[in-house]
Formats: sequence, C-alpha cells, structure tokens
Amino acid sequence: MAAFSFNKLVIFGVGLIGGSLARGLREHGDVDGARQVIGVGRSAASTARALELGVIDASASLTDDAALRDALDGADIVLLAAPVAQTQPLLERLAPFLSSDTIITDAGSTKSDVVAAARAALGERIVQFVPGHPIAGRESSGVDAALPDLYVDRNVVLCALPENAPGSVARIAAMWRATGATVREMDPAQHDRVFASVSHLPHVLSFALVEQILNSSDAALKFSFAAGGFRDFTRIAASSPEMWRDVCVANRAALLDELDAYTAVLARLRAAIEAGDGAALEAVFARSRIARTEWQTQRGAVNVTNDASK
Amino acid sequence: MAAFSFNKLVIFGVGLIGGSLARGLREHGDVDGARQVIGVGRSAASTARALELGVIDASASLTDDAALRDALDGADIVLLAAPVAQTQPLLERLAPFLSSDTIITDAGSTKSDVVAAARAALGERIVQFVPGHPIAGRESSGVDAALPDLYVDRNVVLCALPENAPGSVARIAAMWRATGATVREMDPAQHDRVFASVSHLPHVLSFALVEQILNSSDAALKFSFAAGGFRDFTRIAASSPEMWRDVCVANRAALLDELDAYTAVLARLRAAIEAGDGAALEAVFARSRIARTEWQTQRGAVNVTNDASK
Repeated sequence: MAAFSFNKLVIFGVGLIGGSLARGLREHGDVDGARQVIGVGRSAASTARALELGVIDASASLTDDAALRDALDGADIVLLAAPVAQTQPLLERLAPFLSSDTIITDAGSTKSDVVAAARAALGERIVQFVPGHPIAGRESSGVDAALPDLYVDRNVVLCALPENAPGSVARIAAMWRATGATVREMDPAQHDRVFASVSHLPHVLSFALVEQILNSSDAALKFSFAAGGFRDFTRIAASSPEMWRDVCVANRAALLDELDAYTAVLARLRAAIEAGDGAALEAVFARSRIARTEWQTQRGAVNVTNDASK
Repeated sequence: MAAFSFNKLVIFGVGLIGGSLARGLREHGDVDGARQVIGVGRSAASTARALELGVIDASASLTDDAALRDALDGADIVLLAAPVAQTQPLLERLAPFLSSDTIITDAGSTKSDVVAAARAALGERIVQFVPGHPIAGRESSGVDAALPDLYVDRNVVLCALPENAPGSVARIAAMWRATGATVREMDPAQHDRVFASVSHLPHVLSFALVEQILNSSDAALKFSFAAGGFRDFTRIAASSPEMWRDVCVANRAALLDELDAYTAVLARLRAAIEAGDGAALEAVFARSRIARTEWQTQRGAVNVTNDASK
C-alpha cells in the first residue's frame, strides 16, 4: 500500500513552501492516485512559472469564480501557503466552492491567529481545517527555490482542533510524511510560545542589531569590521520584511512574553558587566555553551541550505 | 627583497592565534631571516604539542627565569596571544628580560584595557609595545586548530601609540601582511567601540537567548523545535566562556553603551509589536535586510571555517 494517495491537491500560493510540497509528493516517496496538483495565485506570473517548471499541472486565478470552482471540485486537500495575514480572506474566498469532503490545511508560522481566522471564515466547516506548520525554509523564496527534499528530516507541526475528525488529521500527517517529514502535534498556544522563543524572537533580535548599527554615527566603519560572528548572528536579518512583520503582529502576545523574558536576562547580564562580575558572566556563558553544544550534537548533521531561514 | 624578515619571534600563548601566526609566517609568503619561533606557555603540555606539530622550534617555561632570558635574548618580536586579562602579569614577567630593540605586540580582542595594562607594566618601555588585534578565529581553539591561512584576507587592527616609533609599527604591520592579512589602523577607543558593536554585543545577545530558553519551563520542547535561524543566531553561544567573560569585563564601558543603544531599539520594536504597527516593523526589517544584504555582497565570498568565532 502506498504511504499516501491523492487525486487532487490545490495549493494557494505556489512559492517555496507550497512548491516544495508539490515537488516532494511528485518526486519523492511512495505516493499514488491521480496526483493532480493545481496552483492558485494572485499573480498570473507566479503560477505560470510554476507550470513552466512542472511543479503544478494546472493553475487557476483567485479572482475567477468559475476557475476556482473547477479547481476545488473534487479536491482531496487544499493547502494555504500564503502569508498568515491572508488566511481569513483566502478562506472566505474559497469557502463557497468547498466540498464537504475536502480537507484544508495551512503552512503558516503562527497558529492561534490562523485558527481564529479559520473559525471566522469557515464557521461550522472548521471541522475541515487542520492547522499545520512545516519547520523548513530557505533564504531564497518563490517557486524557483522550491526543492523536492525541503521537508526531509524536518518537523511538521500539526495543531489538530477538537472539531477535526481523526481521519482528517491522519491524512494531513500522511501527506507530510510522504515528503520525508516528521509530524509532531502541539496545541496552537504551545506552538506559538515555542516558535516565539526559538524563531520569532531571534529574528527580531537580529533585525534589531542591524538597525542599531545603522542608527550609529560610525555605521560604515562598524560594518567594515564585522566578521563571522556578526555574519551568523544577522543571517536571518536578510529574511522577508513582509513575512516577519506579519508573524510579529500575528503572534504578538507570545512574542511579547518572550521578548520581556529576554530583556530581563539582558538586564541581569548588564548588571554583571557593569559590576565587573566575571564569575556571574562566566556561569551564564558556560551554561549556554554547554546547552548550545548539546543541542548541536543531538541535532546531528545539519543541512545548511535547507533550513537557513527558519 | 622579502616581504618580511625576522630572526626570532617569541609567542606567549601558542594556541589558535599564536600558532596560526607561526604557521602563517613559515608556510606562507615571502619571509626570510633565521625565522626561529619560540613558544612560551604556562602549561608544558601545550608547548610540547606545538613542538610536536612543528609550529614552534623551541619552548620555554614562563616560570623559569633562565629559560625566559634565553628565549627573549635577541628576539625581534614578542607576541602576546593569551587572554587579555593576562596582559599585565605577562608583561611584568617578561619586562626584566626584554632587550630595548625587541618590539612587543598583542592579539587581544580589546585595546583600551590592554594599553592601560601595558603602560602599567612597561613604564617608559611602552614605546616598544604596538597594540594589535587580528580579526580572525575559529570555534575550535588550541594549537591543533592553528592554520597557516587563518589570516588570509582578514583584517588586523593596529592601535599604534603616540610613543611608538613609526618603524616599529611598520614592522608589526609587515609581519601580519606576510600572513596574508590586511592591516588597518584605529585608535584604541574607536577599536573598542566598533568591536563592542559588531562582535562583543552579538556574543552577549546570543548567550542570553540560550540562557533565556534554559530558564523557561519548556526548555526541552523549545530546543527540540529550534531550527536553522536558532542555529545561526546562537552559533557564537558555543564560544569560550572564559574569553568572553574577560572581553565583557575589559571592554565594559563601550559594551554597556552598545547594549543600552540596543535595548532602546528593542524597546521601540516592542512598542510597535504591542501596537500591531506592521508598517513600523516592516520599515525597520526592510532597512536591516537591505543593509545586511549589501554587507554580504561587499564582503564577497565568505570563508566559513576561518572566522566563525569572531
């Protein structure tokens, strides 16, 4: 028996994330069924490029009712792979054409707000929506950056809702596993707290360092001496401003909690630096070094190109 | 004419930095003279290893007066490549055996405190001390990590003192250039401000993020979902706790200035997040992304292994 089978998958937003799912299902794994993939986009150029690359079989315009109806007719699964702020308008747009046996999932970096948007847009049909978040990315974006193995050995978080049928959750999990991913379940609040800490906060901190240097009178001199530590620390400051704007706003409650806890740690370190308390600094640095080194060891070999942006 | 010529170089602390200078002068470049390199260390094991690897020709124990006198007799150049907190005791230890035509330099990450320590230890012989800082490193340390090309295309900052003879500064500059480095001059205060910003502060911020996660009740869960952004942001949190303790204390004035400026930027971003002010966030993120991308472009191809720890 195949690991996963589908007849029609409709992807709203065929960029890096949606395109890599399509390529992963086609080029990897043990997948059968008709395996038709339809891309829906706001821009004709991006779906045309996805068609040209063979990532999708057909495309539909978001603004064309008839095309959208055709695209969604008989779809097994719909994936939303657009910025999280578009979740509600997208769901409102597709709801009138949605069959009751289609399962919808998403790939958004935040989950509490996505669930709220989905409840508002779908009403009772929230049963059909299984929130998800593949923890994979690259610094480059767009369908040209899509890779069939983007999700291999990556985590995909599913935040199953109380209303979801177990079979629907199992089906979305099987889809991601067919691309090589490991599926893990969390509730939306827990998801948002964890990613506020290990992803959203570091992005804000990294953007902030570059901003601070830009604000200083000797910015050019500073940049000219910046070396490897700066390079690694600020790599994520080259990430998409639009995406991270949306993430910060969508996950603001959890992010503010983490930011405040971080500021408290920083204040403690500041006091130790001011007091010249080397022992206190060394204790924190040594603990951090051990934890960071253990994390790297447990994580094992790292695929640098595959997840640089998450 | 050779780019650089020396008869005897004495290195206090033959680890990554001192060992790479010795290997660079031997294996690279256009260097002549007797080219004898003597290593002085606190631990017999580390100098023995440097001898075994052929990085040095002879060793001397720091605690043996006669050996130290012999080592320094006729030395062209002395390099201090030990943690900055050891600058003053080391200089006090070698001062009685120092010839008036030996030039001393160092490789410390901070410069104002090193200059103060050198003035205290050397008195009028401060004329012989040319403060320096090679901007290169690796995550691994010790003489086994030393590389002949560690300094190729790296900056070496010299903070020449008013008392230095121009010929002495030129000679230290020629030594570093012979290893492939670019030599740049700054005054100590400017040096400390620049590196507080682009190196010392990011290290503190990176250690602080790991510390914050460790302090949280769901640390294990958070670490288990940390991916590429976390990995890059915290790579420098695996750096030496002792070294960074010393740097933070030695450069505390400049570091506190940068930390306070950073905290102010963070407070501004916090307010924008709390207010859901996406436009303000996006403006900062977009500016940072452009600056970070330009920096990477101007910097050109990056040697990842060579400068990961600075």
